[in-house]
Amino acid sequence: MKVKIKDTFWNERIDIVRKEVIPYQWEALNDRLPDVEPSHAIKNFRIAAGDESGEFKGMVFQDSDVMKWLEAVAYILEHHPDEELEETADTVIDLLQRAQQDDGYLDTYFIVKEPEMKWKNLRDWHELYCAGHLIEAAVAYFHATGKRKLLDISCRFADKIDDVFGTEANQIQGYPGHQEIELALLRLYETTGEERYLNLSRFFLDERGKEPHYFDKEKEERGEPGPADWDGYFKRYSYQQAHLPIRNQTEAVGHSVRAMYMYTAMADMAAKTEEKELEQACHNLWKNVTTKQMYITGGLGSQEFGESFSFDYDLPNDLCYTETCASIGLVFWANRMLKMDINHQYGDVMERALYNGILSGMDLDGRKFFYVNPLEVWPEAVQARKDKEHVKPVRQPWYACACCPPNLARIIASLNHYIYNVSENEVFVHLYIGSEIDFEVAGQNVTLSQQTNYPWGENVNFEVSLKEKERFTLALRIPAWTSDAALKVNGESVSIEKSIEKGYVYVNRTWSDGDKVELYLPMEIQKMRSHPNLRHNAGKIALQRGPIVYCLEEIDNGPALQNISLKHNTKLRVEPGNDIANDVLVIKAEAEKTDPSDWGDELYSAATREKQPITMMAVPYYTWCNRDPGEMLVWINEK
Amino acid sequence: MKVKIKDTFWNERIDIVRKEVIPYQWEALNDRLPDVEPSHAIKNFRIAAGDESGEFKGMVFQDSDVMKWLEAVAYILEHHPDEELEETADTVIDLLQRAQQDDGYLDTYFIVKEPEMKWKNLRDWHELYCAGHLIEAAVAYFHATGKRKLLDISCRFADKIDDVFGTEANQIQGYPGHQEIELALLRLYETTGEERYLNLSRFFLDERGKEPHYFDKEKEERGEPGPADWDGYFKRYSYQQAHLPIRNQTEAVGHSVRAMYMYTAMADMAAKTEEKELEQACHNLWKNVTTKQMYITGGLGSQEFGESFSFDYDLPNDLCYTETCASIGLVFWANRMLKMDINHQYGDVMERALYNGILSGMDLDGRKFFYVNPLEVWPEAVQARKDKEHVKPVRQPWYACACCPPNLARIIASLNHYIYNVSENEVFVHLYIGSEIDFEVAGQNVTLSQQTNYPWGENVNFEVSLKEKERFTLALRIPAWTSDAALKVNGESVSIEKSIEKGYVYVNRTWSDGDKVELYLPMEIQKMRSHPNLRHNAGKIALQRGPIVYCLEEIDNGPALQNISLKHNTKLRVEPGNDIANDVLVIKAEAEKTDPSDWGDELYSAATREKQPITMMAVPYYTWCNRDPGEMLVWINEK
Repeated sequence: MKVKIKDTFWNERIDIVRKEVIPYQWEALNDRLPDVEPSHAIKNFRIAAGDESGEFKGMVFQDSDVMKWLEAVAYILEHHPDEELEETADTVIDLLQRAQQDDGYLDTYFIVKEPEMKWKNLRDWHELYCAGHLIEAAVAYFHATGKRKLLDISCRFADKIDDVFGTEANQIQGYPGHQEIELALLRLYETTGEERYLNLSRFFLDERGKEPHYFDKEKEERGEPGPADWDGYFKRYSYQQAHLPIRNQTEAVGHSVRAMYMYTAMADMAAKTEEKELEQACHNLWKNVTTKQMYITGGLGSQEFGESFSFDYDLPNDLCYTETCASIGLVFWANRMLKMDINHQYGDVMERALYNGILSGMDLDGRKFFYVNPLEVWPEAVQARKDKEHVKPVRQPWYACACCPPNLARIIASLNHYIYNVSENEVFVHLYIGSEIDFEVAGQNVTLSQQTNYPWGENVNFEVSLKEKERFTLALRIPAWTSDAALKVNGESVSIEKSIEKGYVYVNRTWSDGDKVELYLPMEIQKMRSHPNLRHNAGKIALQRGPIVYCLEEIDNGPALQNISLKHNTKLRVEPGNDIANDVLVIKAEAEKTDPSDWGDELYSAATREKQPITMMAVPYYTWCNRDPGEMLVWINEK
Repeated sequence: MKVKIKDTFWNERIDIVRKEVIPYQWEALNDRLPDVEPSHAIKNFRIAAGDESGEFKGMVFQDSDVMKWLEAVAYILEHHPDEELEETADTVIDLLQRAQQDDGYLDTYFIVKEPEMKWKNLRDWHELYCAGHLIEAAVAYFHATGKRKLLDISCRFADKIDDVFGTEANQIQGYPGHQEIELALLRLYETTGEERYLNLSRFFLDERGKEPHYFDKEKEERGEPGPADWDGYFKRYSYQQAHLPIRNQTEAVGHSVRAMYMYTAMADMAAKTEEKELEQACHNLWKNVTTKQMYITGGLGSQEFGESFSFDYDLPNDLCYTETCASIGLVFWANRMLKMDINHQYGDVMERALYNGILSGMDLDGRKFFYVNPLEVWPEAVQARKDKEHVKPVRQPWYACACCPPNLARIIASLNHYIYNVSENEVFVHLYIGSEIDFEVAGQNVTLSQQTNYPWGENVNFEVSLKEKERFTLALRIPAWTSDAALKVNGESVSIEKSIEKGYVYVNRTWSDGDKVELYLPMEIQKMRSHPNLRHNAGKIALQRGPIVYCLEEIDNGPALQNISLKHNTKLRVEPGNDIANDVLVIKAEAEKTDPSDWGDELYSAATREKQPITMMAVPYYTWCNRDPGEMLVWINEK
């Protein structure tokens, strides 16, 4: 299948990635940005390749920035040919080739700085993580350009890793502290058909959490004493999801990005092997994350310490970590879950994360980024309090640890891969994004075009193009946020109720060229409430319309947003918000607000004060902090 | 004047201090407690005295534990003679005498461990802080027993300090990082009449915050590089309230206990010198603390980092530090403010702190202690989250840094000093505590007895005993929480309105033996609301009756207390709570609670759920966590 996005909402963002993020990141990788700590990432490769002399600088995982950039470039080239960009990428690939050692090893930190420490600290040193990103870039670049060079580089390194790791006496029986290679090897297996990459991925997954712990063994070999600093909080190895064998894990723990990457690999492995126990583990973890540990924005990670999950129903809005990368990882995972199970909850979560906690990570111009995407910000508090220092009141230009912006670039640039799935005679539509897909049914090429103003418009129209009539099934996700969805085929109503299964409506018929399907997804504004165990949101509502979660900003509603309350029967209305961004819809309502000017000096008082009527305005969460910075609030008091 | 407490509520607590806390602490000081890290405090003195050999152990301020214990013992001996206890104290005083150096110096850390580092790090090393506690103990012990030995020891040390510090070329022109000596020297001046102690206290206050900063100078002399870790958060020297000269300070900043001790000294100095500029600085700081930075429990310090104030209206209930010692310091300060200004706000704040944020620091048996007194606790969260690790879900037996329990002991044991003030022909009643005061008017001894069931009962009865009729003024505080207070003298109503000034009603008359005054202070349950700038309490109320702030506990109301909401017109009723503690009154009301069992699995949902009616029960905040531990909440959602 081949998918091309033709969508007002998303093409704007893909263009931003293409025109802003990728060129900007290229400058960053080459240390040409003023006022930004030099990345040294390309330089590290040049030193490793012998092109110049010098010392390794940057994080132990600095290489991955280059890999993620290459991967994002590949996705852009896939649907937007660009000779100059491809040439630049090819130069980088040549550089990687020169840096790669004869035995296939490729990690500049260990080539340049500590050659004798290769594979000596899998827990902390990210070698296999960087290798995973190399593989993902290679797979993407091969699919986009048909060029094998990077794929060959990554295969050589994967083969080297396959030599080094395993259960033989001369092999290392360990696994990485930061997961990534597991999911990457599965993609390499898909692309090359080489079973040993599947098996190596399975090895890393299966070894995890076995006792005695590999991390203890390697630590002992390094001669390091005592437990890790965080053992008390994360219990042993929970930080790396290595506290239990993966099939016994039922609750999301530890570093949220690592968790997402591991669950992604688990789901992909389960889909590929149809192993029931692994499938069940995926379902258990999915349920835990999405029903007990996920913010309404699709944000994950409720504490800064360890950038980690804390525990069930602990989702404070002002202390959260909710790293952009974790929400991106959630989309990876949902995408793999759909390979083993068709259920609208995966698409629902995917769009929840995409339209909210992921898009919020970037400003509307693609020049500034949030790593932490909080649901409540009081700028004075995050500036003055040490326990909130990880929350930034405004997006930042670029960080020394540049994980989120490149991750944003690669997910947005590859969004065409998340919209559809095609099996033998079924085409599944998971996301409503204007696009065109070409696929084969019974040897015949079929084109399905999707037109929509989603996420603002309530209509999605499909048209089928094919030469010969053909029977196949079109399966459309009906999101949980809508009721009274309606479906027409060639103008005639089709009952959704009769053909819906786990949130997908299945239209099985013989299609003719020009057949039209109209899906209507009413977008009533929803007053969302939280599970009563989620103490932080008691008595509060969040506004959602379609997949878009809304928030209040100080610029529209004045300071101290907590003083705004909505009556439970308040009528909410939608209005155009073109001054914020194209096509954006804002929500307005008559509300009440306590006015500090009525109050006087006392801090506490038994006197009752009248509240002032105000017209409250809520904007899409992802657009916040694109005008004058200030307070922001997702969960609004309800009276 | 001489005051004896005869009060059901407080005598119980004073007895606990006498029978439990002081003996327990004595065991602690002598390292005889199982399962508690040895204090080594007495041993340090024995080593310094040459009684035994060994090394100094403990905090740099370990000596102060001994001083605080001696001070508390003195207060107990004042109203409860106890030969054995006095003998023990005398032995300790002998030990101190042996440990004191020939030049008067007395600090075991520097005598035993680092003699060459005396006075080299005033910012961090607490020498003057320990000296202050020695002086306070000495003053108290002299007043209680008439014995001069400890007073002489402390005068010798104070004289030594007076030699070392000053503006002469051979003197150190510095001041302590942890204030305490300033207020202690003023007490020593009061007791001895020696003006040089007043002047030395003023020197320390006046030097503070002068530029160039003394802390920079001494740091340079020690050869230490760079700024302190916390400079970014506290700005330079705010942590020690040394960022500005004291008269220019208008906002409470930094470590809250240090702040309280300094403001106490400032107010006492202003009262003694009648310096207007200093008085104004005290008023400015008082207003800032009590109208912008104080919890409703009288708790101070809204962040763990630096155990410090954060900024105006930032009072999160689950992240606060609210150290017992800080609330105790607030009472010290209020007590000194009353020396320079008669206004009910000082007594109001004093009782707010005493009956809530201070008493909560100790369990009802006097065996376990909170250092941090939060206003909202979810035990799972404080156990699992690093940013809440300073909040303990239950009181702890004794800490290695034993600041709060000894401070609790000394404030409770000395409470008789906080109830009254007597000036030439006026007697002020600041606190309503059953007691008897003897004082002189025109050379004649007058006894005023106070009888009350405060804080539960609404009546306070006074009786005057004197031989000859005498004209004087009885001034009674009318707390801000009452309305319709009523006053009778010998059964006849007296208008409060006509003779009230800044919250004190002044009864000026010629008193005869047996005259009776009846004060009626109606204790309607108050639904307290917070200033709208205090975002954390928006839409919430706290219950208060008389001076007592109430809270909800899980044991009475089930888990997830945030799900309870009170309608704004709900009737609240008072009931006896004798199963919690003697005489305690609890508050009950019909309320609503969201029931998780109605909810299902979804974390977020637009469906509306019925709430369940419940009978909500609130208990006095200070009694919380004396039954089964669990969640606790002060600020309740209001619908």
